[in-house]
Amino acid sequence: MIRIAVDCMGGDYAPEEIVKGCILAYKELGIESLLVGDEKKIRDILKREGFKEELQIVHAPETIQMNEPPSNVLKKKNSSLYIAGKLVRDGLADGLVSAGNTGAVLTVGKFIIGSLEELERPAIGVALPNPKGKTVLLDVGANVDCKPKHLLHFAVIGHTYAEEILNIKNPKVGILSIGEEEGKGNELVKETYPLLKASRLNFKGNAEGRDIYAGTFDVIVCDGFVGNVILKASESLGFAVIQMIKEEVQKSLLAKIGALLIKPALNNFKKKADFAEYGGIPLLGAKKPVIITHGRANAKAIKNAIKVANEFLTHHFNERLSENLRKLLPQEVKA
Amino acid sequence: MIRIAVDCMGGDYAPEEIVKGCILAYKELGIESLLVGDEKKIRDILKREGFKEELQIVHAPETIQMNEPPSNVLKKKNSSLYIAGKLVRDGLADGLVSAGNTGAVLTVGKFIIGSLEELERPAIGVALPNPKGKTVLLDVGANVDCKPKHLLHFAVIGHTYAEEILNIKNPKVGILSIGEEEGKGNELVKETYPLLKASRLNFKGNAEGRDIYAGTFDVIVCDGFVGNVILKASESLGFAVIQMIKEEVQKSLLAKIGALLIKPALNNFKKKADFAEYGGIPLLGAKKPVIITHGRANAKAIKNAIKVANEFLTHHFNERLSENLRKLLPQEVKA
Repeated sequence: MIRIAVDCMGGDYAPEEIVKGCILAYKELGIESLLVGDEKKIRDILKREGFKEELQIVHAPETIQMNEPPSNVLKKKNSSLYIAGKLVRDGLADGLVSAGNTGAVLTVGKFIIGSLEELERPAIGVALPNPKGKTVLLDVGANVDCKPKHLLHFAVIGHTYAEEILNIKNPKVGILSIGEEEGKGNELVKETYPLLKASRLNFKGNAEGRDIYAGTFDVIVCDGFVGNVILKASESLGFAVIQMIKEEVQKSLLAKIGALLIKPALNNFKKKADFAEYGGIPLLGAKKPVIITHGRANAKAIKNAIKVANEFLTHHFNERLSENLRKLLPQEVKA
Repeated sequence: MIRIAVDCMGGDYAPEEIVKGCILAYKELGIESLLVGDEKKIRDILKREGFKEELQIVHAPETIQMNEPPSNVLKKKNSSLYIAGKLVRDGLADGLVSAGNTGAVLTVGKFIIGSLEELERPAIGVALPNPKGKTVLLDVGANVDCKPKHLLHFAVIGHTYAEEILNIKNPKVGILSIGEEEGKGNELVKETYPLLKASRLNFKGNAEGRDIYAGTFDVIVCDGFVGNVILKASESLGFAVIQMIKEEVQKSLLAKIGALLIKPALNNFKKKADFAEYGGIPLLGAKKPVIITHGRANAKAIKNAIKVANEFLTHHFNERLSENLRKLLPQEVKA
């Protein structure tokens, strides 16, 4: 039986929405969670929702705050996040879900749960929507300064994610750069390019910024600094565009009516675009699935994150990733 | 009398739209251009538009193609772009406008026109729109691998651009990173931070990706690799969003009607958002204004680019920049 350790104290709506998310995952999907956090608070919510013994609670008296330095989690050994991570490390749970302090979740993923033996570093991957489907961008924040070998590993991680989770066969892999031609880019890109070319990945060369949302590649690798600023800039661009359009709409009555009529279509689009809403962001390459959700995750988002963690397990993602790391890397890098 | 050298052969609609843009700038703004390119073709267009001797032509028999390696321009000494750059270098023109091969225009700006003595490297700056106004992001592509000193210079360039061209007093300057707190970021950011802190700029610390379109900073500096991928990703995100919303709208009649009603408001927004349309992108810190417009620039865009080049001159941008480089930098970096 698969069991996902859920940090019930992390996130803007913890513990209420987190616990409710665990209940939804159990009722709708039949996936069991280990609820880690303040036992009394969790039990109260479960009781109110008509639950008794079906879901197991692991008490944790401390909480990592959203603005705490991430490394604090390694000292706060009674925090819900630390304990949840330890349950996974010790084999008592099969994956971790948290809506808490992202840096702290990453720290637990990297240093308590740890990464696959074949990997030096796990990476955060996001499946960004585009008109044709999805493109996996990684790393978006787990590794700030990277070496060519790391980017090569990210490419294999992204390949495996695209194949196993997004069902894309023989995914087209690119490296993010500032021009299409080989030889364009910064030092890191120039050094990584020949390694990718020598691999057995379906490497298609440099991807430009414009390829991220164009669907021209299935997987695009970059260092975690670049990926992180792109991801956050994209989010804020979305907000800014909506805000500026709203201001223009307010200037005309016809436009206001138009906005009402178009709203359902916009909501459908938003659902498709908000990758964080349906299932959070995985730390790929950790020994067990680690899913980081948005701080403002509600019950549904938590349920979806638990579902994603479960999916990584049932698709044997890590086994496939290990195989691919042995099979797809060029000989000189594997050693 | 100010005269702007215009590369009439560069761009998707050259020479027709470029020449017409020069005519518009002369008729509407009273700014004179030097029209560089195929003399016969240019003269034909001028004649058709009822112009004779008012605008001077400088013949150039060769053209740099859009897909040529940028460095070719240094060998093609009879190309319109090379000759236009040389006219500026030799003081026969006061600025350069081109809709041609961006890399080649950059090459001319950096190596033929050259940068201010106080600067090691010029930078491309864009004034990105946000709900509160504009934020200058630089460098977005002139310098791929940067040192802390370069980013510090970019900050002074951005400060000067915000003050002199965007009329923002004491602009808030940030350095792009992956977290707000000092100490967050890659090696380059960590090394640059103390230099910015020691400067006399209004330095407000780390900016995150989300700050780019939020209006929380007036100037954000980053290396040209990061800035370039962000800029291109933003453009492609815009296209992808519009495409995906259109698809949703097509599914419902009411939404289709709504889309028609909202269209004028959307067009107003587009005009505000399309920074490249009104005036192109400046290479800041070159000895004379160099304005790079979109390849698909039409006559109006060219007119606006000529206007922007003129503005840099009438605002004495370079003099202010030189002053600021002497005044605002920390002592140890100035030397």
